[in-house]
Amino acid sequence: MMDTKNKVRIVVDAMGGDFAPVNEVAGAIMAYQERGDNIHIILTGKEDVLKKELAKSGAQNIEIVNATEVVTMEDSPTEVFKSKPDSSINVGLKLVKEKKADAFISAGNTGAVMAASTLRLGRIKGVGRPTIGSIFPANETITFVLDVGASVDCKAIHLKEFAIMGTIYMKHIFGVNNPTVGLLSVGEEKEKGNELTLEAYELLEKADVNFVGNVEGRDVLNGKVDIIVCDGFTGNIILKFAEGVLDLLKAKFRSFADKSLTNKLKMGMMQGTMRAILKDFDYQEYGGVPLLGVDGVSIIGHGKSSPLAIRNMIYRAEEVVRKDVCEKIRVEINK
Amino acid sequence: MMDTKNKVRIVVDAMGGDFAPVNEVAGAIMAYQERGDNIHIILTGKEDVLKKELAKSGAQNIEIVNATEVVTMEDSPTEVFKSKPDSSINVGLKLVKEKKADAFISAGNTGAVMAASTLRLGRIKGVGRPTIGSIFPANETITFVLDVGASVDCKAIHLKEFAIMGTIYMKHIFGVNNPTVGLLSVGEEKEKGNELTLEAYELLEKADVNFVGNVEGRDVLNGKVDIIVCDGFTGNIILKFAEGVLDLLKAKFRSFADKSLTNKLKMGMMQGTMRAILKDFDYQEYGGVPLLGVDGVSIIGHGKSSPLAIRNMIYRAEEVVRKDVCEKIRVEINK
Repeated sequence: MMDTKNKVRIVVDAMGGDFAPVNEVAGAIMAYQERGDNIHIILTGKEDVLKKELAKSGAQNIEIVNATEVVTMEDSPTEVFKSKPDSSINVGLKLVKEKKADAFISAGNTGAVMAASTLRLGRIKGVGRPTIGSIFPANETITFVLDVGASVDCKAIHLKEFAIMGTIYMKHIFGVNNPTVGLLSVGEEKEKGNELTLEAYELLEKADVNFVGNVEGRDVLNGKVDIIVCDGFTGNIILKFAEGVLDLLKAKFRSFADKSLTNKLKMGMMQGTMRAILKDFDYQEYGGVPLLGVDGVSIIGHGKSSPLAIRNMIYRAEEVVRKDVCEKIRVEINK
Repeated sequence: MMDTKNKVRIVVDAMGGDFAPVNEVAGAIMAYQERGDNIHIILTGKEDVLKKELAKSGAQNIEIVNATEVVTMEDSPTEVFKSKPDSSINVGLKLVKEKKADAFISAGNTGAVMAASTLRLGRIKGVGRPTIGSIFPANETITFVLDVGASVDCKAIHLKEFAIMGTIYMKHIFGVNNPTVGLLSVGEEKEKGNELTLEAYELLEKADVNFVGNVEGRDVLNGKVDIIVCDGFTGNIILKFAEGVLDLLKAKFRSFADKSLTNKLKMGMMQGTMRAILKDFDYQEYGGVPLLGVDGVSIIGHGKSSPLAIRNMIYRAEEVVRKDVCEKIRVEINK
């Protein structure tokens, strides 16, 4: 394990993300300027492109490791590991695997990053399925939902693993003492649910987590519990649905404004207020989320990540390394 | 089948719903006043209570059929059929079964109405699982999502049935010609999904519906397709999640207003605008939705249904009867 007295070495996939490498480089510079004594940043990607991008700002002390291939959103997630061995994703993860770096972050093709991370870093012994979670805003608090897409077909035992890993993450990264865990289902009563949740309920009752029973779809946003576990199919659908809600609201606002000048003026006046209210719905506030259960730190962010979001992902990576989340998972999962 | 020249006889469960019997009776009167020549309304519930409620408005020509028991939200859905045989739900459905009425509507315990409808009316021959759908607003259009809770554990064949029944409903009730059908999954590509959707994709490709492939969570609200099919577990979670979004928005607005007098004034000014924008999110606009696949018309509404929502459910019931949706399902499902 890394010496916590030393700098945390973080690899940034500079070719991932919809606005790469501009936002990736800008975010890396931002992080370095603020925490340069604590972190060492390594950008992976096309060396010539990245050198030029870094030169624009005159930034120093940010390392570049060349990677000649670029994974796009069109690439099949499960194939890039083999088809593009010299991609910024593979090169970056290799540095972590070989202990030349402590963490990897990417705003690139989520599926590809998940698949490559699992294949390259391997799973922590005792973990059946790695998982990726997402932070949902509740009023005055947050809820960590997992899995949101790493494991679409789950067995009950996997939901139990998600609960254990989620608990460690909420405790050590978000400072929630003894976080409560809910099982996403179609009713609060123990006997409500599908085959998977009925079986998972039994396992969670016996697990060493603060399990409080079933929760429903509405509870994702009301702060009833700190952690919600579900299969990756369901979790991915609600994550994308939530994005759809914001898109629809924006579209509604726009078409309302387009109807008349009065409406336009009204919307203009409301804009600041609406922004303040909807701020909590902005995923970028929370930085990326690690793929939990793989044997190393790999943090995945939204394709549209801004420089600020990239900076936050770098901070999150540093924190996950310093808190030794992987080691804590290894211990808890094998208890 | 009923003679369409005659009145459609609609049973209203007057004891269901959070505001029963007040809203139920008010909605029934509203419907009768507007369409009295076309419908005959039968209220089921405690005769003395309903007589008093009807007398308040001096309404005439609305029949009452006594039912001594009341199903509450605490009753187990699968047990009330046996444990409360003389409930307003059972008495009402019996009238439909015995052809003394053409349709049943209820804003009561959804699970109980679904279970009792299936047990009392039976399934249409060829239908493996009845289904209930929900209308979601998209910008300038709507999407019909099914199943949202009638069948939590589905096989691929059931998703195909949902597509066929949803197509009939969208075509004949919402007048959508050749409605498009999407399969809810975690990616647009055919090979993305869980075991259930991968198998369902194959069946839907060959089915006699306008199948356009996988859709994602965000597509529930953007009008990409007219119909989305999914298992009832996933559908129920997004339905409740959507309600949670509205609750959270309201809570955010409230706490924003509470922060200062200026904020309060801002919110006051925005109120009308926000209401106009969020109007489409109001389930009451769409009336209830029938449990498709049972051999009779049973329409289920939200527990919080207003008189207007009850009226709309009655209209929906009349329409579903006149368009002979059950018979159309029987024909299509057995093709």
